[in-house]
Amino acid sequence: MKLLEDRIRRDGTIKAGNVLKVDAFLNHQCDVALFNQMGAEWARLFAERQIDKIVTIEASGIGIACITAQHFGNVPVVFAKKTQSINLDGDQYVSSIYSFTKQREYPVIVAKRFLSPGEHVLLIDDFLANGNALHGLIDICQHAQVTIEGIGIAIEKGFQEGGQKLRAEGYDIKSLAIVKSMDPEQGSIEFEPCE
Amino acid sequence: MKLLEDRIRRDGTIKAGNVLKVDAFLNHQCDVALFNQMGAEWARLFAERQIDKIVTIEASGIGIACITAQHFGNVPVVFAKKTQSINLDGDQYVSSIYSFTKQREYPVIVAKRFLSPGEHVLLIDDFLANGNALHGLIDICQHAQVTIEGIGIAIEKGFQEGGQKLRAEGYDIKSLAIVKSMDPEQGSIEFEPCE
Repeated sequence: MKLLEDRIRRDGTIKAGNVLKVDAFLNHQCDVALFNQMGAEWARLFAERQIDKIVTIEASGIGIACITAQHFGNVPVVFAKKTQSINLDGDQYVSSIYSFTKQREYPVIVAKRFLSPGEHVLLIDDFLANGNALHGLIDICQHAQVTIEGIGIAIEKGFQEGGQKLRAEGYDIKSLAIVKSMDPEQGSIEFEPCE
Repeated sequence: MKLLEDRIRRDGTIKAGNVLKVDAFLNHQCDVALFNQMGAEWARLFAERQIDKIVTIEASGIGIACITAQHFGNVPVVFAKKTQSINLDGDQYVSSIYSFTKQREYPVIVAKRFLSPGEHVLLIDDFLANGNALHGLIDICQHAQVTIEGIGIAIEKGFQEGGQKLRAEGYDIKSLAIVKSMDPEQGSIEFEPCE
């Protein structure tokens, strides 16, 4: 998606250690007009799919998922939680993932009553790198016996293995920008061609 | 807002300890059509105000804030973070709040470059009870020297002191549903009249 690639070039920051900061428009400050264009693009890419629900993970996925739901007939959005709370009672699906950016292990939790067997879901997240967070969501979806119709990712780090492994497992992943390489010294970034 | 009150009566659950669970439509599963009607209502209530930016706090505020931004001319949404991350570098505004639902103290963090002195902001959150979370956001806004034009709350617990204290401090709070009393045994709930 050229619009997103251009925006990453303009407002993203490349740092050492393969860190791409896009907090000016994606995951700290949010550009809602951009999110709408991303949502419209996923609606085009997944037009053939039946989507009953969008599932994402707190916190960065929530805004993107809610705006995107408008392009899928206002389907419900369920966001997995990363901390237990006294408000989270009843039966839960729980998985566990390791975050490199937070540098710790944390749970991924969805209340069982918000994923019903037989539902068709679209997973949405802001980043795909090694795929850890997505694997947590996929694990929960499998336990819930919902069908994952597709996975919409804003930015995929194509040089990390997450996307490749998940595609090999048969998941239909549509990343709106796939980073081929980044150079923190030059501040340059190259993208792979998208659909 | 009658629509929200009706929805709370229909899909909310009242539990002992003054807990009102609205995770079926507000803060675990999200009803985006409802969020749009809430956003339109805040746009009506704050029509006289200049709003340059919406500020909220992860995680439950993000979806509501992003949908609401569409009703304020797609202004940027900034969400305060509750955990440090290697992606959060540079100068930050940091405050600290205590969460009764999480039963621990946690930081509230906003990168300095996303709040500029002189900006006019609208704060949005899903709940207002004792006002702890809001005080963290207000503290950050004061340090950032931005003007808080108003505070939009989905559900205020009118029997707790947060709203009363903040209104006494001069803040223009528009809560879309103000709970007067709840009875977990009867499952009944009463609301105060809203504007």
